Amino acid sequence: MTGTTDAPRSPGRPRSTRAAEAIIEATLDLLAEGSTIEAISIEAIAARAGVGKATIYRRWPGKGALLHDALRTLKGAPPQPVGRSVREDLILLVGAVGHNLDPRAAKIMPCLVPEAQRSPEHYALYQNIIEPRRAAMREVLRRGIRAGELRADLDVEVTMAMLTGPMLIQRVMNWNPDLDEAGLPEKVVDGLLAGIRAR
Amino acid sequence: MTGTTDAPRSPGRPRSTRAAEAIIEATLDLLAEGSTIEAISIEAIAARAGVGKATIYRRWPGKGALLHDALRTLKGAPPQPVGRSVREDLILLVGAVGHNLDPRAAKIMPCLVPEAQRSPEHYALYQNIIEPRRAAMREVLRRGIRAGELRADLDVEVTMAMLTGPMLIQRVMNWNPDLDEAGLPEKVVDGLLAGIRAR
Repeated sequence: MTGTTDAPRSPGRPRSTRAAEAIIEATLDLLAEGSTIEAISIEAIAARAGVGKATIYRRWPGKGALLHDALRTLKGAPPQPVGRSVREDLILLVGAVGHNLDPRAAKIMPCLVPEAQRSPEHYALYQNIIEPRRAAMREVLRRGIRAGELRADLDVEVTMAMLTGPMLIQRVMNWNPDLDEAGLPEKVVDGLLAGIRAR
Repeated sequence: MTGTTDAPRSPGRPRSTRAAEAIIEATLDLLAEGSTIEAISIEAIAARAGVGKATIYRRWPGKGALLHDALRTLKGAPPQPVGRSVREDLILLVGAVGHNLDPRAAKIMPCLVPEAQRSPEHYALYQNIIEPRRAAMREVLRRGIRAGELRADLDVEVTMAMLTGPMLIQRVMNWNPDLDEAGLPEKVVDGLLAGIRAR
């Protein structure tokens, strides 16, 4: 509904765009401060954004749709593989796992994981953030198989978990304090490409 | 202080052992029902276990020490590697990652992860569960290097993250609904041993 408000335009971006941004920001601020996706309310978001509830409902049918947009905004789009080599593309994508430009993500994402398991709606919100990232990685692996760079019998979904898992547990769970994170994406990709068995 | 209470013994296990078990069980029940490690109180645990607070303080100096024991009880000891082959031992240990005999663990563990990041005390509780599992895996990998089965230049900490990560994100985070978990430990170990590059 951008640009359809009857209020006079202020200079710069349309008023409704600014309101939408304020609503998204208020949602992310509240989540980062500890509101759960279960407990957060349209009332609280409206109050924090300095808008009326009606302004939120003009743009989003309900809390789920607003959270969907807010969480996608938080994580941004996955990086675009360059397409020169499977190794380089995987390092790019693996390096982005659990790496957040927005500092609020470090507070919101770990708490989302247990919440995601509580209902199908919450799980869908969580998958809506992850699936674009998985899709980008899946495409690189399939390209590698087609080009003969990767084993023809590769289990793509298992391989994605092997590339993503080490980064996620280390960056999101802070799994091992003795693990040096410098160069971890390269080490993970090269370790998996070559294998660890002595030859 | 097992056996030092002045009450007459009932048949079977000593009274203080039964009290300690009830206290551990009450702690785990409360955590599984959604109490955070921040919010859970000695008062609530005593009430749930049907004991006085003094009974708890006779055995544990405070909440941190009680949570330490309760969470270790919840997870149990890691499985013992057989020592026949690195591959078999790794499959055993990888298969145990995120696998919980106690159904309460599935409710408690994911919520522990974000809480663990909030203070050094909480992080220590979390590491106290994980470190015995990492130690067992580290020993198998070091044995494999010494025996010449694994690459001499292997980064052991990175390799542990690569073995643990896929299991943890799938079992604890329910990361990818399209990933078939059947045989996942074998697939992870074999994929990492051999590598994914075409030959």
